[in-house]
Order: sequence, then C-alpha cells, then structure tokens
Amino acid sequence: MPEVVIMKEIRGRNEEYADANREKFKTDRVLAVNIMGAPGAGKTSFLMALCKKLKERGIRSAVIEGDLYSSIDTEEFISEGFDSVQINTEGECHIDANVIRQGYDSLGFSGGVVFIENVGNLICPAEFDLGEGLKVITASVLEGDDKPYKYVPMYSYVDAVVLTKCDLKDAVGFDTEYFTKGLRALNDAPVYETSVKDQDRAEGIEEVADLIEAKYRAV
Amino acid sequence: MPEVVIMKEIRGRNEEYADANREKFKTDRVLAVNIMGAPGAGKTSFLMALCKKLKERGIRSAVIEGDLYSSIDTEEFISEGFDSVQINTEGECHIDANVIRQGYDSLGFSGGVVFIENVGNLICPAEFDLGEGLKVITASVLEGDDKPYKYVPMYSYVDAVVLTKCDLKDAVGFDTEYFTKGLRALNDAPVYETSVKDQDRAEGIEEVADLIEAKYRAV
Repeated sequence: MPEVVIMKEIRGRNEEYADANREKFKTDRVLAVNIMGAPGAGKTSFLMALCKKLKERGIRSAVIEGDLYSSIDTEEFISEGFDSVQINTEGECHIDANVIRQGYDSLGFSGGVVFIENVGNLICPAEFDLGEGLKVITASVLEGDDKPYKYVPMYSYVDAVVLTKCDLKDAVGFDTEYFTKGLRALNDAPVYETSVKDQDRAEGIEEVADLIEAKYRAV
Repeated sequence: MPEVVIMKEIRGRNEEYADANREKFKTDRVLAVNIMGAPGAGKTSFLMALCKKLKERGIRSAVIEGDLYSSIDTEEFISEGFDSVQINTEGECHIDANVIRQGYDSLGFSGGVVFIENVGNLICPAEFDLGEGLKVITASVLEGDDKPYKYVPMYSYVDAVVLTKCDLKDAVGFDTEYFTKGLRALNDAPVYETSVKDQDRAEGIEEVADLIEAKYRAV
C-alpha cells in the first residue's frame, strides 16, 4: 500500500501555507505543477506519459495524488517507478496547501518536478493556491467545446490548457475554434492537443514537456 | 434572454428549505428530479431527450438549469418549447434548496416533472438536499469505469445511474462489469445505458422514462 496522507482542513490559513510551499519549492529547486480537470479528463494517463517523457530527458519527477478516498492512481505511478504519495481528502472537493506540504515532505524529494494531481473538479480547486509554479488544466475533448464558457473561474485561473483524448475529436464533433474563442475571452494560456490512448505512442506530450522543462530550468 | 436567478447562499439552513420544497412539490403534484454529473457528462442532451419522451407520453416537464455563469442550456430548452429557468451560482460549486425554491416559484409550474440540472460536479452537490423526489447521476462512459471507486459520496447518494454516450463504450474500452462492481459496493441503484448522439433516435431513454413516469404517478 502506498503512503496515504489524510487531509484535515485548516480554513482561512491557506495563503500562509501556500507562501511557505513556494519558498520551500524554491529552496529545493522544485517546479510544482498543479494538474486540474474534471472527473475522467484523463489526468492520470496524461501525467504518466509526461513523467516518462521527462525521464527520457533526464528530469526527475514525482507525483502527489489527490483523491477523495482511493489510492488507485498512486499505485500505478509507483509500479512505473515514480515516487508518489496519496492524499485522501475524505470527501472534500479540493486539495489545500497544508496537505500538499505534508505530502511533499513525505516524498523527500528535491531537484525535479513535482506534479500535484488535484481532485477531479472544475470548480473548487481554482480557489486554493497551493504554492505551485504552474497551473494546468486537462480538458478532455469528450467534455464538449463549451466548457470555458461555463467554468469561468477555472479557465481564468490556469497557465496552460491540455486538451486530452484528441483522437476522439472528430467522433464527438469537438470545435477547437469555439473552445479557443471561449478561452481567449478569459486567458492567453497556450493550448496543447494530446492523445495518450497508446502510452508508447503518446501524441502532443513532447510540446508539453518543452513547457515543463523550460519552467523547470528557470526555477 | 431567459430568466436568471442569482444564488445567494444562506449557510446552515439548507435542510429547512429542502423540507419546505418537499412539501411544496407534494402540494403541486410535482416530481422533482435532481440530475447530477461531471462536466461534460451529457446532462443537457440526455435531459432534452427525456423531456421529449415524457411529452410523447403526455407528461409535462420543466427544467431548472444550474450553471456557474452562463445561460446556454436554458435557451436550448426554451427554444424546444419547454419551461426553463436559469440559476447562476456565481461560481459556487453546487445548487442549494433555497435557490431551487426561487427558480421553481418563477416557473409557475404544477402537475408534472421538474428537472433540476445541477452544476457539473461529482463532489459537492451530494451534500445538498434540494427536497427532490429522485436523485440521478449521469455518468459518461468516457469518464472511465473507475468513477464509483473514486467519487464515493456521490455514488452512494443517488437513486439511479444513467450511463451516457454508450455508443462510444467500445472506443474507450469501458468495462461495465467493473463499473457496476464499484457501484454495488455502495448502492443498489439501477443502471441505465443511454446514447443520445442522435436526438431523434435516442437509445435507452424509454427505460428511464418508465422510471420517471412510475415515480411521477406515485407522487
């Protein structure tokens, strides 16, 4: 069983913890990346492909997995040889900065990229600064092209947008132009089109890895 | 523009409002159905097909649409001839019983089914009793078959599960048995398999309409 940290929320002090995390990540030469998205957006599969790609480039990465109760995803990362720790929010709808610190400390990690896979939720996580250096949303084309029009706080909040499951774009009639128009009303974040249906022939991951690597080298 | 009710949350009194709603729905011979699901689960398309099916059976329906900011979906229902009112939660992650009452009162409806399309969120709505007579989750097969294992409170909370976009089941390798096993650990709710890719040839809606009709006749 992987290590599991249970979240006990300390309301109102999140900003304080987030600032402390920022400081700690800097000291440890760590780029922390907050990966958000709806349930089923494909966060875990995307992240697995990205971690493997970074490994090829000689960049270490570790994963803090957020979930309401389970530890399915952490086990997957550990079995692939990546450091990973599980945070269980016990039903809470977001991860906070305090529990991220507990999870991070238990990893004993430095000099690399720490991915935080947030709880599947397009609303609440946009209210909680974790002290991360980069905020990414993974959006499955299967969710539909109208999501930036509906989930305004989240699409305003992020630094980069990763479209996932793009191999099914035509099957569901996803209109990239309409999606991007909605996003551009809120945000200049770059959009990456990816597909990791086949982990060994993942598409679009190279470009995301370029972004992560550039951000990491600048830490 | 459709009517839009802005939600002002009154914390702590939700149960009181929910009880009052239950009483009101009973007096008005209304079955209220809370439709929940993740962003992009296909709630609106499913609901449109269901409303049309009920209309064929001579059952009136109206829709209270919940969204963070937009009123895209309400306009769609109105253009199809159904009564519909928009609730904007102004970024909040759920709908509460008080705003449902405001939306319901503005509809001026009785003797039929009122559908409440909740905000796209698999977590928070499971904490808010709306006074509804039936709680339904719409789960797209594209979200993956592991969701009952991860979103435990929601999958414990609902009375019926509607699998949507089942025409893409094979394309994404959705394992119904694994999904149902996770659900059965929490809940005996019936599972309906639907596809409304083509609204005029919607599949599986007849069976859901049977459930709604039976519940409505018993109000």
